[in-house]
Amino acid sequence: MTEAPDDVFKQLKLQVRRSLHGKSTVDCLEGICLASAAWLSRLERVPLVSKVAGKDYFAFQSKDRLSRAVNEKLYVCEAEDMAEFFSALRRRSFAGFDAITLTSRCYTAAIGFCCYKDCTSTGDQKTPGTFFEYFAAALFSQMSQLEPSTRIEVLNLDLRASLPTDYIFDYGPNLPKYHLPVKISTRERIIQVWAHQRVLDGVYGTGRFRGIPFIMSETKTDRRNKEVVEICLPVQWQIYQLHIAQLWRIYYCDPPAVYLGLTKLFPPIHVRSAGDLLLDFASLSKP
Amino acid sequence: MTEAPDDVFKQLKLQVRRSLHGKSTVDCLEGICLASAAWLSRLERVPLVSKVAGKDYFAFQSKDRLSRAVNEKLYVCEAEDMAEFFSALRRRSFAGFDAITLTSRCYTAAIGFCCYKDCTSTGDQKTPGTFFEYFAAALFSQMSQLEPSTRIEVLNLDLRASLPTDYIFDYGPNLPKYHLPVKISTRERIIQVWAHQRVLDGVYGTGRFRGIPFIMSETKTDRRNKEVVEICLPVQWQIYQLHIAQLWRIYYCDPPAVYLGLTKLFPPIHVRSAGDLLLDFASLSKP
Repeated sequence: MTEAPDDVFKQLKLQVRRSLHGKSTVDCLEGICLASAAWLSRLERVPLVSKVAGKDYFAFQSKDRLSRAVNEKLYVCEAEDMAEFFSALRRRSFAGFDAITLTSRCYTAAIGFCCYKDCTSTGDQKTPGTFFEYFAAALFSQMSQLEPSTRIEVLNLDLRASLPTDYIFDYGPNLPKYHLPVKISTRERIIQVWAHQRVLDGVYGTGRFRGIPFIMSETKTDRRNKEVVEICLPVQWQIYQLHIAQLWRIYYCDPPAVYLGLTKLFPPIHVRSAGDLLLDFASLSKP
Repeated sequence: MTEAPDDVFKQLKLQVRRSLHGKSTVDCLEGICLASAAWLSRLERVPLVSKVAGKDYFAFQSKDRLSRAVNEKLYVCEAEDMAEFFSALRRRSFAGFDAITLTSRCYTAAIGFCCYKDCTSTGDQKTPGTFFEYFAAALFSQMSQLEPSTRIEVLNLDLRASLPTDYIFDYGPNLPKYHLPVKISTRERIIQVWAHQRVLDGVYGTGRFRGIPFIMSETKTDRRNKEVVEICLPVQWQIYQLHIAQLWRIYYCDPPAVYLGLTKLFPPIHVRSAGDLLLDFASLSKP
């Protein structure tokens, strides 16, 4: 008998106040993943009409409630697969995993609790968002063994202020500093991420902070006709990357193909998968 | 017997597709204002606990529904006062009005329909937002006699794109171009406005477009304990004005005192009232 997902989430909330990395945090993430998967496994899966080329989606249905769209290929049902992933995360070593497998593990660990909330509450968008923030920050914190901060000091002659930010991971003097905005999806709100990067560049010097947004997906489901689309704004992204600031890399659990294609165009925007992030860690701490 | 506010709003929606300025648009705005005021006049006014120094707020109550906070001093009840305002708007001449009076007229014309929607629908945030956008754009369009566009062409070597924007009013070659983002309130979302200004500066050259956000207020009501606060982030604004782009002026229907104070600090941020905007029009078309 597993615990209720909400109960483990409460434990996670307490835990992240103490530390975003370490065994206890990974235990909570695994507990939430397992509890959500067990709860969801009893539900019917409703196929959705995918308007996204090359991807199939379904939704979990609980009475009259429908979960968000779940990518069929990325969602893993086997508890052993997920146990293997969390145990590698505890060891901080993903030797033997490839990026595609790791991406599907991250996706599963992240989306399960969100679907559970979709099916058990009415219009609660906040809790899935908060959970996903903790999830992404805990992944980064566990792999880097750094605790993030969420404020930075701004000193500018007579202006002295402390600015709230997304998670900031600082490897120390002369080493990279990462700015990790976390979003379930972005659409036109992504401009905020570029604007925050611009502020960091302005205050600390261009390139001092590397912006690496971590995003779940860009799917949108029409609950009436059960259609899933991906909402992507590649030309806006290019204009932001040209005219506002340069984001370093953008990581997705379910990366849209059109964004993956931006890597090869000008200005280059390096869109990668969540699995790539975990495999990138060997190099992230290097100048 | 006046029409239902929703019916006049439907007429406005049809009208703005044809033209944002002219007698028919002003007629619709006046119709919505009158119909909403008449409907609201039958409701009880519940005093709110104002945590905003120097300002008192109330809310309209319809059964178990409470409207947003209404600034007592700014809300005008007399139909003749509003008729006088709309007739001046039709003539495009506010001779004899001062900024304070005009601000209260704008505030009344804008907030009435929003309160009506608060009291008649559940959680419909979109319709008040759309109405307020039309309202602000129609004011600017009527005073300038220009029709706005909401897309601009971006040409950059091999990149050729059309970017969606807020309302853009263009006085023509060598004359100012205004970019008018319209928001019911902004909080941390205001960074988007600075970021859009940065894009316009980057694409067209700094100063080519003058950014003039038009905002209702920054109040937030706690419906449980009936407290009203103003959520202001003056230090963030200063950092955005220093590091992202320069906004030209920021207009409020119910301007927060702390933002009005930014005019005298560095970097100067020129916050003014909606009434000032109407009186500023004589100079807006000049280079």
